[in-house]
Amino acid sequence: MTYFKFELIHRSKKSRARVGRIHTPHGIIDTPNFVAVGTNGTVKALNNTMLHDIGLQLMFCNTYHMMLQPGTDIVRQAGGLHSFIQRKLPIITDSGGFQVFSLAYGSVADELKSRGTKKQGGCVLKITEEGVLFRSYRDGSKVLLTPESSIKAQKDLGADIIIPFDELPPYHIARDALKKSLDRTHRWEKRSLEAHLKNPQEQAMYAVVHGGIDPDLRKESCAILTELPFDGFAVGGSMGKTKDEMHTLLSLTLPLLPEDKPNHLLGIGDLPSIERSVPLGIDTFDSSYPTRAARHGILLTKQGPLNITKSEYATNFNSIEKGCLCPACHHFSLAYIHHLFKARELTCMSLATVHNLYFMVQLMEKYRKQIQEDLI
Amino acid sequence: MTYFKFELIHRSKKSRARVGRIHTPHGIIDTPNFVAVGTNGTVKALNNTMLHDIGLQLMFCNTYHMMLQPGTDIVRQAGGLHSFIQRKLPIITDSGGFQVFSLAYGSVADELKSRGTKKQGGCVLKITEEGVLFRSYRDGSKVLLTPESSIKAQKDLGADIIIPFDELPPYHIARDALKKSLDRTHRWEKRSLEAHLKNPQEQAMYAVVHGGIDPDLRKESCAILTELPFDGFAVGGSMGKTKDEMHTLLSLTLPLLPEDKPNHLLGIGDLPSIERSVPLGIDTFDSSYPTRAARHGILLTKQGPLNITKSEYATNFNSIEKGCLCPACHHFSLAYIHHLFKARELTCMSLATVHNLYFMVQLMEKYRKQIQEDLI
Repeated sequence: MTYFKFELIHRSKKSRARVGRIHTPHGIIDTPNFVAVGTNGTVKALNNTMLHDIGLQLMFCNTYHMMLQPGTDIVRQAGGLHSFIQRKLPIITDSGGFQVFSLAYGSVADELKSRGTKKQGGCVLKITEEGVLFRSYRDGSKVLLTPESSIKAQKDLGADIIIPFDELPPYHIARDALKKSLDRTHRWEKRSLEAHLKNPQEQAMYAVVHGGIDPDLRKESCAILTELPFDGFAVGGSMGKTKDEMHTLLSLTLPLLPEDKPNHLLGIGDLPSIERSVPLGIDTFDSSYPTRAARHGILLTKQGPLNITKSEYATNFNSIEKGCLCPACHHFSLAYIHHLFKARELTCMSLATVHNLYFMVQLMEKYRKQIQEDLI
Repeated sequence: MTYFKFELIHRSKKSRARVGRIHTPHGIIDTPNFVAVGTNGTVKALNNTMLHDIGLQLMFCNTYHMMLQPGTDIVRQAGGLHSFIQRKLPIITDSGGFQVFSLAYGSVADELKSRGTKKQGGCVLKITEEGVLFRSYRDGSKVLLTPESSIKAQKDLGADIIIPFDELPPYHIARDALKKSLDRTHRWEKRSLEAHLKNPQEQAMYAVVHGGIDPDLRKESCAILTELPFDGFAVGGSMGKTKDEMHTLLSLTLPLLPEDKPNHLLGIGDLPSIERSVPLGIDTFDSSYPTRAARHGILLTKQGPLNITKSEYATNFNSIEKGCLCPACHHFSLAYIHHLFKARELTCMSLATVHNLYFMVQLMEKYRKQIQEDLI
């Protein structure tokens, strides 16, 4: 395949961190890098032109949401996701599995607080070898998602990188049930890969390593999936309650993955997690953290996050961060953005979002530079 | 005054319509023109860079809102409104009176439907010769607004064009009460002008012609206000229930105003009203119609407004309007914008808003061309 290539540019002498370059039909992704989440085909509060302008190289869209609205057939009619949402740079889609199951079980945080299952447990109706039957959150209709239908949907969407259909077991699960889920996930991933390879469409597919918080099952998952011709590896599933647990699991998992293929960490991209995972060899991180934080008035700076709604910013006429070249910092002051938040103007959401994403672009560039210099 | 000048470029041979150019310290306003409303120092869902890029020459900010949040003292500290909101082009502010009174009485539409007074009647506590005492909608504190304090606030804001403090009497008002209100408004406008002229600060001031739906009182208002050295004239107050009533009142009023000064129609800028008022000699119109309509999914086109949320647009991959050069039409399809509305993405608000405002920019350019050719 010449349309997808992972080029390893530099391995740190200090850790497993590496600088690389993922080549896709829609351009290059320098790694390590951050992936913005644009669930419905847009990063919330931005348009795709603005996203392009700040140099964000990879965008994550959610197949589950696009299936229910507008429907992947409409996206296909539009000529695929790039054409429909007018993005010229690379896109990655997930399988839809994560959303189906996380709506059923809630997030790990929900689960730990006993939320989630009670609230939305009715969404998943049945899990069989074939796939998962769930109820649409939009119109209540029954939808069957299988490895084949997920890949069909992802073919309609036409992202540069796609993900095989997997099950997301809850954090609280007995080992037997976890093992059973893992085996089925491996069969589902294999079926997904086969469906994909019948019609590659210049897309690349990353496997999803599962096994929950069980080290042996994680090892088993790596062993099985690395035997298959995937183009890269994503680490998914529950990785424990704490960042230490996650660090332990990733430290164990990543050395078992081939060095010449890219590694993605699914759904995790808060700043401390990125800082701890880059030295382990994670190449890309997707997370809605920077964009969701922005909409709540949390602005990322080199000195740490600041809460723009605090009254101390009402008369601060400096930009969010001195020297930042993002459109928000280039034009507007903390005092003005504070005012927009206080006045509940939608405009504040887009200014905060564009700043936080530009911060991530700069942060990842800094990591790449530090790895090149063997500093991390 | 050299910092403000109204240049009359062409009088139509067919009507009282004229093409002009208002020169201000922040640049030119070609007339007739549409004025975007940016109540809190931003057009809702856009930022001021985007507004600049589509060529919208005049923006309306509301003194009442800026007084309560962030406070005009903070805007003054920032170096005035242009600096605070980062707008390089001209700005007009109102006196705050309209908002105080309309929050008390509701809009004419509210009044006709017996809404408004019941809901928010408690806001205005007392009207005296000195001014109006009202309760802040933000924190419940009592605020006294007088001609002098309104002008002080507008000096802090530093817009290119400012408005004297006036009373907005309700539509349903006895003639005696209307006459009493009108006389007081004239005294308030005179006090405002005096306060302004003590410290002109390169600002221009437009008088506000009142008199409600009483032709004689409108004539009286013109006679009194045109004796004073105002830089332009705005038509305010209630103009009846129908567009015909408004047309009759404006037909009567405008010939009584000096031809060498600009005329503004306050708060009215729907398309039929603009079409009927341009031939009467109105030069500028401010209205939140195009931006509010946008946020509700109503997109303006040469073929009439369309409702983007209708299912027929789900698979329409054309732009909103063929040939439109706005950023929304340049990049995105009806189907995508329909999808963003259906998925409740904030992004749809800014795309719809930028399109509708660009439509207004183009529409007013068309009117200017037609007047130049004596077609209207």
